[in-house]
Formats: sequence, C-alpha cells, structure tokens
Amino acid sequence: MSASSIDLAVIPGDGIGPEVIAEAVKVLEKAVAAEGVELKQTHYKLGAEHWLATGETLPDEVLADLRTRDAILFGAVGAAPGDTRIPSGIIEREMLLKLRFSLDHYVNLRPSRLYGTVGSPLANPGTIDFIVVREGTEGPYVGNGGSLRAGTPHEVATEVSLNTAHGVERVVRDAFRRASARERKHVTLVHKHNVLVFAGHLWKRTVEAVAQEFPEVTHDYLHVDAATIFMVTDPSRFDVIVTDNLFGDILTDLAAAITGGIGLAASGNINMDRTAPSMFEPVHGSAPDIAGQGKADPTAAILSAALLLDHLGYAEAARKIEAAVVADVEKRDGTARSTTAVGDAIAAGL
Amino acid sequence: MSASSIDLAVIPGDGIGPEVIAEAVKVLEKAVAAEGVELKQTHYKLGAEHWLATGETLPDEVLADLRTRDAILFGAVGAAPGDTRIPSGIIEREMLLKLRFSLDHYVNLRPSRLYGTVGSPLANPGTIDFIVVREGTEGPYVGNGGSLRAGTPHEVATEVSLNTAHGVERVVRDAFRRASARERKHVTLVHKHNVLVFAGHLWKRTVEAVAQEFPEVTHDYLHVDAATIFMVTDPSRFDVIVTDNLFGDILTDLAAAITGGIGLAASGNINMDRTAPSMFEPVHGSAPDIAGQGKADPTAAILSAALLLDHLGYAEAARKIEAAVVADVEKRDGTARSTTAVGDAIAAGL
Ligand SMILES: CC(C)[C@H](C(=O)O)[C@@H](O)C(=O)O
Ligand SMILES: CC(C)[C@H](C(=O)O)[C@@H](O)C(=O)O
Repeated sequence: MSASSIDLAVIPGDGIGPEVIAEAVKVLEKAVAAEGVELKQTHYKLGAEHWLATGETLPDEVLADLRTRDAILFGAVGAAPGDTRIPSGIIEREMLLKLRFSLDHYVNLRPSRLYGTVGSPLANPGTIDFIVVREGTEGPYVGNGGSLRAGTPHEVATEVSLNTAHGVERVVRDAFRRASARERKHVTLVHKHNVLVFAGHLWKRTVEAVAQEFPEVTHDYLHVDAATIFMVTDPSRFDVIVTDNLFGDILTDLAAAITGGIGLAASGNINMDRTAPSMFEPVHGSAPDIAGQGKADPTAAILSAALLLDHLGYAEAARKIEAAVVADVEKRDGTARSTTAVGDAIAAGL
Repeated sequence: MSASSIDLAVIPGDGIGPEVIAEAVKVLEKAVAAEGVELKQTHYKLGAEHWLATGETLPDEVLADLRTRDAILFGAVGAAPGDTRIPSGIIEREMLLKLRFSLDHYVNLRPSRLYGTVGSPLANPGTIDFIVVREGTEGPYVGNGGSLRAGTPHEVATEVSLNTAHGVERVVRDAFRRASARERKHVTLVHKHNVLVFAGHLWKRTVEAVAQEFPEVTHDYLHVDAATIFMVTDPSRFDVIVTDNLFGDILTDLAAAITGGIGLAASGNINMDRTAPSMFEPVHGSAPDIAGQGKADPTAAILSAALLLDHLGYAEAARKIEAAVVADVEKRDGTARSTTAVGDAIAAGL
C-alpha cells in the first residue's frame, strides 16, 4: 500500500482539535518526508463552530469528497457543555458517527500502553500493554431509538441495539488476527451475555467459531462489569479485548485513564476492507475549557498519526513516531509545556 | 415500620453465598436482639445447585411465599463458569432478575465508601463516600431482545432498552431525596445522551424537572465513559450518582473495585413503595473457585444486612453494624482470616 504520496484529509474540528492536529501534521510531515513521501493535505471545516456558522453537519458533497482521500486525520468536535445554541449530540451523531458508519469503520482500534514514568492513577499498575478492538458500526450506536408520548407522564423511550453476524464476525476476526501477531496471543471478549442474551450469544458463538481458525490464539470471556474491576486491579491480564460499540466506548476511556490519561490515547476508525478511507483521532474531546491556550497535549493526536501511517503501509515511519513519543513521554516530570513545545520535541526526536 | 419481630426470607444461594449469609445472619440476630426484636427466618433453596437438582428457577408458589415476608437477605447465585450443564445466565435472569422485576425493586442502592486503611488500587484515592442509585426494573435489562436467522451468516440479534417516564421519574426522585439528606447534596446523572438520544433525553429531562422540587440539591451530568475516568482520577467528586440499570451495573463494580474490592460492597434492591419486600445482597457473585473453603469475606453480606435494617426502620441497629464493620475493617492488615472469624469479630464489636 505504500506510495510516493499520501492524499490526506484533515478535519481539525473544534476546541483543542486544531491545536493538537497542527502538531500531529507537523510530526507526520517530517516522518514521511524522511521516506521520500509527499504529504498532500486537504483541510475540511466541520464541527460545532462550523455548524453555528452554516447549519451544516456533514453535507453529502463533503462526504463524497472525503471518500476520495487516502485517510482522514481527525481532531475533536463538540461545543462547550453549557452552549445551548447547539442541539445536544447533533455534531457527534450527524458528523462523527456519520463518518464512522458511512465509511464503514468497523474496527475502532484503541491501543493502551503505560509508558515508564507517566502517571497512572493506580498504585501498582504493572505492565499495561493491550489493545481494544471496539466494533464501530453497529450495536447500541445505530441510532435506532424512539419516544412514544414524549414529555408526558406516559412516555416510553427505546433504544435498540442491532448486531449482525456479518458485523460481529468481521471485527472478531480482526481481533484474532491482531492477537495472532502479538506476543501473548490472547483475546478477551467483553460483553454481558447473562443479561443481553441475544446480542451476547451472537458475540460468544462468533468468538468460539472464529477461534477455530486461530489455534495459536487463546481466548476468554468477561462480563463488562467484571472487566472494569480487572482494569483497575490487574490490567496486565489484557492483551486484545474485543467488544461492542458501547462497551468499547466505556472501557477505552477507563483504559486511557489508567494509562496516564486521555492526553495519550490514540485511536483508529478503520475500514479493513479499504472500501473507504479510514480515520484516525485522539480519544479525547474538544476540551473547550482549555482551548486556545496552548495547553493541550498533542501526544494522542501524534500517536493517532502513527496509527494512520501503519494503516497506509508505512510501518517504519509509524515506529519512528512511536519511538519519539516514548522517548519524550519517558522524560516527562510534570513540568508544563505548551502544545507546540511537545510537538516540536517529538518532531525533533524522530 | 419497626415492630417486635422481623419475618425474614433468606436465600443463601450458591458457592460462597451460604457461607457469607451465615455470618450476616449471625450479626443481624445479635443486632436486633439488642433492641428486643425477634428474627424469624425462612430459608429458601434457590440457585444453580437447586436448578441442577430440580430444574426449578423460581416457582410461582415460592415467589408468592416470598411476597409475604418483611424482607429478603440474598447471598449469591451462579454456577462455576465452566459448568456447561446450566444454560448460561438462566439463574441470573429467571431467578435473580425475576425477583428484582417481580418485586418492583426499582431502587438498586449501592453505597461506596473507602474505609481508612483498606486497600484501594488507586495511588491517591482521597475521600470516597458516594452512593449509586441504579434503576432496577427497566432499561436494557428488560429481556426484550431477539434473534433472526440465529446461527446463520445472516443473523440479526437485537436488544431493546425500555425506559418509561414512570420508571425514570421514581428513581430520579429517590436519588434527589437521598442527596437532600446527605451533607454535600449533589446528584450526578450518568448516561450517554449524545448517542442514546431518546433514553438519554428522557433521563435528562426528568432530572431537570425533579431538580425543581429540590432547590437545595445541586446536580450535574456525565457521559458514562467520562464517569469511569473520574471514578479512577477523582472519585471524591461523587455524592449521589443516578443512572440506568446497565450503566449502574458497570459503575458499581468499578466503584467497588476502587474502594477495596467487592468483598466490601453491599447493595439493596429496594421497593420504596413497599408493595413487596425489598432484597439485600452483596454485590459479589458466588465465587465458585473459593467456595467451601471458609475464605470468603462476609463483610459485604453483613453491610447488606445493615441496609436491610435501615429499610425496615431499625436505623440504630443498622448504624451499630456499620460501626462494628468500620472498626473491624480499619484494623485489617492483610492477614488472612476465615469467613467465620470475620463474622465473629464484627458480631463481637456490636
Ligand atoms: C463523542 C462520542 C460520540 C464518541 C463515542 O461515544 O464513540 C466518543 O466518546 C468516543 O469514544 O470516540
Ligand atoms: C448477576 C447479574 C445479572 C447482576 C446484574 O447484572 O445486575 C450482577 O452483575 C449485579 O450487579 O448484581
């Protein structure tokens, strides 16, 4: 998949999004230049600010245009929590989730690793190095809910989780493939099949079936409630977690927290069939409270850029970025540095 | 509600259930005897072992009989994970959840408190003292799922979360009432309304409306993913959390973990309208791996008995049990003690 140029879509978004993306692009440019690869960029104005200015979330033409790119680098979107001008969740659903669903980003990949000296809130974190393969295109995220008699004492509100054999199998197979390439080769399915029987059993049966194809990979199962306990008492036990869209959302924020915070957590929304561009974004949000102050940590965005390079076949450049990040992170002692200072340091370390 | 006798139903259940319940009953008997109250007990054989022996989960006559009691003390149910003789989840759904739903246990109350020296996995836990008011009779737990073309490549499995104004309002009001009686008087709604729009907005609107009745109580909102982050980075911020059945399940296991483990976590399944008996149970499961070895910590079961006394109007006896538990827990230094030794020590401390 490597070529001599990358046609990159950049969606900086709101709040600290543009600040961290600027650093990620800086590092990305330098990393690929070293390999003689040209980085062609097209920037897209999307997000809450854009919605306020234009009323647009994600117009069809923009989505069509994004489809022509090799990959998307995404910052963060969302208005300040108190901003009542924007209908709650509209940007998340009609822009971010619309991108994930339309571009069939079925592997929402979220690696969690604790770097040497970075502050985990755990007293004895041990070695933490796992990935969460979160399903990205179905489950409780399908937007299939409704409200009967809304606003009355007789209201009934529903949310339907939709899970298909097709959707579950492809993401489970991806998790086993990734586990097979890792040292410990272990997959943990996280669900709640004792309560969510039908969805849970589809997941469980699929894991049993796919496991046959990977005799070298071991696997086990945890209910989601138990998984959160192990996340704080024994996170070393995890190698590859595979789970649904909602449980993955919850577990990856917790995973980010125990590995030093969402300032470091990267993610990829990946279409493994390459029928559309994949999208890479920090797990953190737009953090309106610290936006514009040069305080945001660009590390998660920079690590997301490394995942992007991996996906496009530039594994060596990706490893270089990761190594530069690790070197920088291991030197951190709590002294505050600006967003650009961190970006510059990591770029210099390439 | 206090009377000179308590007509108690006891469901010891499986695994460590009978062991911890024996200690809880021991402490309970002593605590109420001191107030001149007689404890009348009826024991019920229910759970995985009982199912294996009889094929019964919760017969109608047993449910009818349970309805005549003042309250239920429940141990734990569930077979060993590898035991394939028992259809997965059948005991949980057709016994435990059937009890919660049939007896309209709409307040699933789970207090979290970190006692002085007990080991939290957090490096700097700070003061942790909050309660989770988990909805217990609707949401994703209603058992409204299905499977189309099960076992084929075209399978579609659904799970429907049902949320009613009636169900949400009564539990939200309960949370505000409890907050109003606490020092910090603060309610945090946890949901995911940016994705689960219809259920989420019903919860959010209900909180806004009920908050009007409690001008002395402040409130805020957190998405469930963010709530798990704060649970490990700043648990002191929580006072009363109100949330749905599934999010409550997840958050209370995490809350138990950060306050020293599920060996200490108590819960009440409460019918606040008293149209049926409420049920009190440790949050932990049947732990088949340590069953029969006298290793289980009965503290969670004993604290659940204190919640039971509170509910029945014996606040003073409840406070005495809690004080005896705190005194015992604060003396713990990691030395292993048997289940009975812990029960005896707490009973002696009354
Ligand atoms: C913003 C929100 C819709 C999103 C999600 O729930 O997936 C976020 O929390 C994430 O994890 O990327
Ligand atoms: C056993 C299971 C059905 C139950 C639940 O999910 O409510 C348990 O996890 C709990 O929290 O009491």
